[in-house]
Amino acid sequence: MKLITFTANGFTRIGALTDNNKVIDLNYAYQAQLQSEGKYRFKEIAEAFVPSEMEAFLQGGKESIEMAKNAVHFALENPTTYKHQLIFNKEDVKIEAPLNRPGKIFAVGHNYREHILEMGRQIPTHPVLFAKFANTIIGPQDDIPFQPVSEQLDYEAEFAFVIGKRAKNVSEEDALDYVAGYTVANDVTYRDIQRRTLQWLQGKTVDGSLPLGPWLVTADEIKDPQCLEMVLTVNGEERQRTNTANQVFTVKRLVSFLSQLVTLEPGDLVITGTPGGVVQAMDPQVWLKDGDVVRVEIEQVGVLENTVRKTREE
Amino acid sequence: MKLITFTANGFTRIGALTDNNKVIDLNYAYQAQLQSEGKYRFKEIAEAFVPSEMEAFLQGGKESIEMAKNAVHFALENPTTYKHQLIFNKEDVKIEAPLNRPGKIFAVGHNYREHILEMGRQIPTHPVLFAKFANTIIGPQDDIPFQPVSEQLDYEAEFAFVIGKRAKNVSEEDALDYVAGYTVANDVTYRDIQRRTLQWLQGKTVDGSLPLGPWLVTADEIKDPQCLEMVLTVNGEERQRTNTANQVFTVKRLVSFLSQLVTLEPGDLVITGTPGGVVQAMDPQVWLKDGDVVRVEIEQVGVLENTVRKTREE
Repeated sequence: MKLITFTANGFTRIGALTDNNKVIDLNYAYQAQLQSEGKYRFKEIAEAFVPSEMEAFLQGGKESIEMAKNAVHFALENPTTYKHQLIFNKEDVKIEAPLNRPGKIFAVGHNYREHILEMGRQIPTHPVLFAKFANTIIGPQDDIPFQPVSEQLDYEAEFAFVIGKRAKNVSEEDALDYVAGYTVANDVTYRDIQRRTLQWLQGKTVDGSLPLGPWLVTADEIKDPQCLEMVLTVNGEERQRTNTANQVFTVKRLVSFLSQLVTLEPGDLVITGTPGGVVQAMDPQVWLKDGDVVRVEIEQVGVLENTVRKTREE
Repeated sequence: MKLITFTANGFTRIGALTDNNKVIDLNYAYQAQLQSEGKYRFKEIAEAFVPSEMEAFLQGGKESIEMAKNAVHFALENPTTYKHQLIFNKEDVKIEAPLNRPGKIFAVGHNYREHILEMGRQIPTHPVLFAKFANTIIGPQDDIPFQPVSEQLDYEAEFAFVIGKRAKNVSEEDALDYVAGYTVANDVTYRDIQRRTLQWLQGKTVDGSLPLGPWLVTADEIKDPQCLEMVLTVNGEERQRTNTANQVFTVKRLVSFLSQLVTLEPGDLVITGTPGGVVQAMDPQVWLKDGDVVRVEIEQVGVLENTVRKTREE
């Protein structure tokens, strides 16, 4: 299932996107299904198990995902039985970032083998981890705000996963069971700000610097997350290309590693690192500028495309 | 006002601590006051302006703090007029961390002048910033869980402040107006994990590694945050001592600096760095161990004391 967060009629809610570009409102679909079954407290039950907000929905785990799938079938077969609109055309809604307020956003540095070797570096023994905060998240139809704090705006194509179940001290063998799904991220970086102190955080957590989406592909649809081609273009010109097969620290290894240090919770987001080809490594360095279109495509997951827009000085 | 989060009768709510160690339930006190004024929708109004959870309460800004102050006066003068208990003895409640889920936790490295100079380093031109996530927060009456991921457990006494108003591109001159209050933090660090990669995050965000509290002293009570003595002891032995006058980046400078990069929101937490005297710098290095009592005292703010407890392997 492709899980989205969308805005229609002034409300932002979660939905499923079908193969023929219909958006099903999951909470209302489940309300409709429960009402048709004669349940008195259909609204309250739907709020409990299939709420309209993604982080809350993910807390329901696989049980809620199964309920949502059934509700999608119900809505497609009974599209007009409910007082609220259940089905939208994709072009009539705004697609937002799938997640809005993840509790943690872990980012991984130096995670693509071929890039590390071409730089003459050693393969690291432990993942390099840094943070972004939720103020960075923007959606697939939002512009990347180019904040007037630096001239060195750079992109980083990243394969991302979202936690679906509380995880503490999880083995690699069990780790994929804790992943709710996968999405596409662009770890937009203000490169000079990142480098001006030892710690990268300040160049990484600027407002609006994490385009995310366009959807969350549930984990059951991606049997092997370590064989996905990823390509980034700027205005159509290819800048980054790799395959998640080249990752030093795989999704299952990252889940296990992180779960030794922290308790991972549903909705926690991990962006798994970028390959070579960032502006920082170009000669000459052609930084992103107003109007540039940055497109990240990951096989089986989706396409995330955003335009850079200079923000006005306030 | 000393704002606390406390647990009594199985509920966790916010309160004010009076000089004679009474805890006033702020939301119920305001409900009681409104009811006495004949307001019909006293519960809903109280939920809107003086909610029972700290991050939500701080979103109300100075208006909510003023309402809470008045409600405290009302409760002290009318202690038994309401169906809920308004006043508790301090020893009958558990004091929790004042904040539970701040959206961002910024930590500052290398921020005490005398310590930087004694290490032979240059005074930095920009603050070194790193992150912790909210999974780290524990309260003043909780034990510090010594997780079995490392033997090198270290302390860091830190003066902390909490944002009280949305802040974007704020000048240093105006910056203190965006601070809700001050508290005490211990930036507990797994030192070898911090150092095993370039980025410190993984040694900094281990579960339970941010004792915080015991309360939030509202900003109006601390006229100058840059003249406060801070002392850390382990089992009564002094290990760290400094004064916030020695900070390279002051509270107002940090608010202004951060607000250029991100939009600061009510409840965001900044821990402002630690002076010399951590175990890392001792010879020999005597790491924290099970049973150690770590006490941080900051003048005009309070005392934060926690005991280290080895967690069992799961």
